[in-house]
Amino acid sequence: MDKALVQPPKGSRDFLPAELRKREHVTRIIRHVYEAHGFEPLETPAFERLETLMGKYGDEGDQLLFKILRRGQPLVDGLRQASELLSQPDAIVRGRSGETLPRAETMLADLGLRYDLTVPLARVYAAHQGVLPPVFKRYQIQPVWRADTPGKGRFREFYQCDVDVCGSSSLVVEAEVLDAAALCLKQLGFNDFTLRLNHRQLLRALIQVCEIDAANEADAITAIDKLDKIGRDGVDKELTTRGVSTTSRMKLLDVLAQGATLDRLQETLGGNELGKHAIGELREVLRLGGLTHAAAHLKFDPSLARGLGYYTGCIFEIQVADLTGSLGGGGRYDGLIGMFSGKQVPACGLSLGLERILVVMEERKMFPASLSPVDCLLAVVEDKDMDAALVVSRELRAAGFSVDVQTRSFKPGKLRQLAETRGVHYAVWIESDRRLEHKALGDSRETDALLVNTLNQVKIS
Amino acid sequence: MDKALVQPPKGSRDFLPAELRKREHVTRIIRHVYEAHGFEPLETPAFERLETLMGKYGDEGDQLLFKILRRGQPLVDGLRQASELLSQPDAIVRGRSGETLPRAETMLADLGLRYDLTVPLARVYAAHQGVLPPVFKRYQIQPVWRADTPGKGRFREFYQCDVDVCGSSSLVVEAEVLDAAALCLKQLGFNDFTLRLNHRQLLRALIQVCEIDAANEADAITAIDKLDKIGRDGVDKELTTRGVSTTSRMKLLDVLAQGATLDRLQETLGGNELGKHAIGELREVLRLGGLTHAAAHLKFDPSLARGLGYYTGCIFEIQVADLTGSLGGGGRYDGLIGMFSGKQVPACGLSLGLERILVVMEERKMFPASLSPVDCLLAVVEDKDMDAALVVSRELRAAGFSVDVQTRSFKPGKLRQLAETRGVHYAVWIESDRRLEHKALGDSRETDALLVNTLNQVKIS
Repeated sequence: MDKALVQPPKGSRDFLPAELRKREHVTRIIRHVYEAHGFEPLETPAFERLETLMGKYGDEGDQLLFKILRRGQPLVDGLRQASELLSQPDAIVRGRSGETLPRAETMLADLGLRYDLTVPLARVYAAHQGVLPPVFKRYQIQPVWRADTPGKGRFREFYQCDVDVCGSSSLVVEAEVLDAAALCLKQLGFNDFTLRLNHRQLLRALIQVCEIDAANEADAITAIDKLDKIGRDGVDKELTTRGVSTTSRMKLLDVLAQGATLDRLQETLGGNELGKHAIGELREVLRLGGLTHAAAHLKFDPSLARGLGYYTGCIFEIQVADLTGSLGGGGRYDGLIGMFSGKQVPACGLSLGLERILVVMEERKMFPASLSPVDCLLAVVEDKDMDAALVVSRELRAAGFSVDVQTRSFKPGKLRQLAETRGVHYAVWIESDRRLEHKALGDSRETDALLVNTLNQVKIS
Repeated sequence: MDKALVQPPKGSRDFLPAELRKREHVTRIIRHVYEAHGFEPLETPAFERLETLMGKYGDEGDQLLFKILRRGQPLVDGLRQASELLSQPDAIVRGRSGETLPRAETMLADLGLRYDLTVPLARVYAAHQGVLPPVFKRYQIQPVWRADTPGKGRFREFYQCDVDVCGSSSLVVEAEVLDAAALCLKQLGFNDFTLRLNHRQLLRALIQVCEIDAANEADAITAIDKLDKIGRDGVDKELTTRGVSTTSRMKLLDVLAQGATLDRLQETLGGNELGKHAIGELREVLRLGGLTHAAAHLKFDPSLARGLGYYTGCIFEIQVADLTGSLGGGGRYDGLIGMFSGKQVPACGLSLGLERILVVMEERKMFPASLSPVDCLLAVVEDKDMDAALVVSRELRAAGFSVDVQTRSFKPGKLRQLAETRGVHYAVWIESDRRLEHKALGDSRETDALLVNTLNQVKIS
C-alpha cells in the first residue's frame, strides 16, 4: 500500500470520530446561539457558476478558486480554444502572475467551488426577492474551498459559520450580529476576546484628511490592514511604494497610532462629512452593543481595515491574545447584493472561523471531557447467544442508551478493558447461561438505575 | 438583473429555511438512530484524488465525476499534453462514448468531487489502520456529486446517509445495519417499507446452474438488476443481446419469477456450493433480522441484484410502493478496502437516500406541523426604545426563547399579523411608555407562563 495515496488531498482533512465530535460540539453551540437570535438556516451548493465568483474577491481570490472542468462537448470546444492560446508564442504564463492562464481556465471550466458564504447569500437574496422576508436574517455553516498554500491552521477546505442580515440599514443589526458572536464565544468558554470595531468611511475620511490621492484609497486600506502584521515601518514602506507623500504617510500613521480615541479622531477630522457620519454610527453601535453580551469586549480600533473590497460601513474583527489572525470578522456591505439584483440592498454580517476557534480551544484544552462516543458496549461470552444480544440492544436503545453490539464474543474482563480504553461508561455482557451482567466504569451516573431496571425487564432465556 | 444567472447551477439547489428545516428534521432523526446503534461520525473532504475515484464506479461512473482543474504549472503542462491530442486527426471524440476525452481530462484535472461515501471510507480505513478500532462502525451524512442529467428527484448535488461496519464478517453486522435503517424509517413515520434481501453469491450460483458463461456474469447481473424496471421481456432481450442461450434464459427467468422462496431455490441449486453458502447466510440474516426493528419488513427477493460491482455477499434495497427506485440500499463488500490497503478487510453497509426520503415524505405530508422558525417576534412601537428591545431580547433568550428583534418600529397589530404569517407563536412589543405587551398566537403552550414571568422581571424603564 502506498501510504501517500490513501491520505486526503493536500490541504484537506479526514475527520475521525474523536476530532469530529469536538467540531460538532462547537458548531452545535454556534448554531444554537444563531437560532436563538432569530437567524434562519440556509444552505447553498458547493459550486457556483464561475462568473458568480470571479471578480468578487480581488485578483488573488480569482486565482485561489477551485475550478471544475466543463463536461462533454463544451470541454471539447474549450480545449480547442485553450490550445489555440498555446500556439501563440509566449502565450502561456507560468505561476500566479499571468493573464493568459486564467483565460484558458475559464474556457476549460464553468463552475467553481464556493469561496465564502457571503457571495452565495447575495446571489440567493437576489434570486428569491419577494419570497424571502424583506429583512432576511440567515445563518450558514458550511465548508468553503481555497487553493491556498496550506499552513498551520490554514486549509484548502475549511468551515465558516456566518450570520448576516439583508435588507436593513438599522444599526441594531450591527449590535445583534456582535451580540451573537460574543455569546457564541462565551458559551464556548472564551472570556478574553476583543471585538475590534472600525468604519470604512472613517478610513476614507482619514485618507482624505491626510491628502492621500483618492486613486490610492484601496492600496492605502490594504496597507493599513497589515499594520498588526508588518508594523508601522512596514506600512510606511508599502505606502511609499504606492507613491504616498511623506507628509501624508506621517499624518496617517500618527493618527492610527495606538490610543486614538473617537474624540481625538473627531478633532482630527474636523468638518469632514464622511468622518462625522462614521463617528456617529460608531458611537451608536458602541452604545447599542453596550446593552448586549458584546459589551465588555467592544473596542474601537482605527487601524482595523479588513482586506475585502465590499465593505461599506462598520467593520469588526475578533481577536484573542494567543492567536495571530482573527477568530472571525465581518461588517456592513451595502453594495454586494446590488451586483446580483441590480437594486441596492443594505446588508451586514459576521463570520466565525471554525478552524481557528478549534485551534485555540485545543491549545487551551477547552473541550469538555465527556464527548463520549457511546453509552454502552454489549457483548456475548459465547457466540451462540448473539440473538439475545440483539434483543438486549433493542431494549437498551429504547430506554435511550446508545449501544455498540460487539460482533464477536468477549470475555467479561476483556470487554471491560475495551470499554475503559474507549471511554465508554457501561459494559454489558451475556453470560453463557444467558444471564445479563453489567459493570459501570468511572463515576456513578444518574442513568445507573435506568440501566439496571431495563436489564431486569429484558426476557432473553 | 438576469434571473437565470442568480439561479443555482444546473442540478444543484439553494435550500431556503423552510425547506432546510425539513431536511434537518430528517437528518436529525437518522443521526440519532445511527448514534444509538453505536456508529461513530466521520467526515471526508469534498474532493478526492482522481485516481482514488476512477475505476471504482464503472465506466459510466468515471464519466459522471466532477473533475477539478489542475492549478498553476501542472495545468500549463496538462494543457500542452491535452492539446497534443487535439493535433491528432479524429482524436477528440464527442459526448460520453469516447476514450480520448477522458484521457485529456486526467491531464487537465487532478481532483474529483466525492461520488459516494463508500470509497472515501475505504480510503480512510486503509489510511488509519491501527488508529481506528479493528471493528470500525461509522456513519457519514454528507453531500455527493454526480454530473448526471437532472430529473425528478435526481440532482447533481445530493445527500447520502451511510452506515458501515469495517473489519467484521459476522452476519450480526447485516442485522444491525438493517435494524438501524428500519428504525430510521419508522421514526420518520414510515410503516409500509420493504427491505428486499438477496445475496450476490446466490446470483452467481444461479448463473452457474443456468449454464450461463462465467464471462457473462456481470452482464447477467446488470440485466437482472433491471427486472422491475424493464420487466421479464426486457431482461430476456438484454440477455439475448449478450448471447445467452434460450434454455439458459428461460431457466434463469423462471427461477426469478415472483414467489421463488429460499426452499425452492435450494432445490433448484442442488449441490452448488456457492448457492448453499449463500442460502445459509440469507437464512441466518433473516433469523437475526427477525429479532430487530427490521423484522416485519424483511423480504427475500432473488431478483434483487444492485448495480455496483463491489458487492460480494448479502445485498439489500429499501422500497415503498409509491416510489420507483429505492429509498436506500447496500450490502457486503469484502474486497473494496483491500484495493486501498492491500489487505482483505470485510465490510458491510447501507446508504439512506435523503432526497428520495424527502420526496416521499413531502408527497405523503409526513412532516410535523411545528418546524417553527423562531419562538418570538420582538418589536418597538417607537424607534427611540430600540435599546430596550435589546435588553428584553437578551432576557428572553437567556430564558430559552429564540427571539427575532425587528430592526424597525411596528404597530402592535402589524407585528401580530407578521407573527401569524410566519407561524411564530409569540409577538412581544414595547409600547411608547416602555411598557411590555405580548400576545400568544395559536394554541396555548406550556411556555406561556415562562414568557410572562420573564417579561415581568425585565427592567427597562
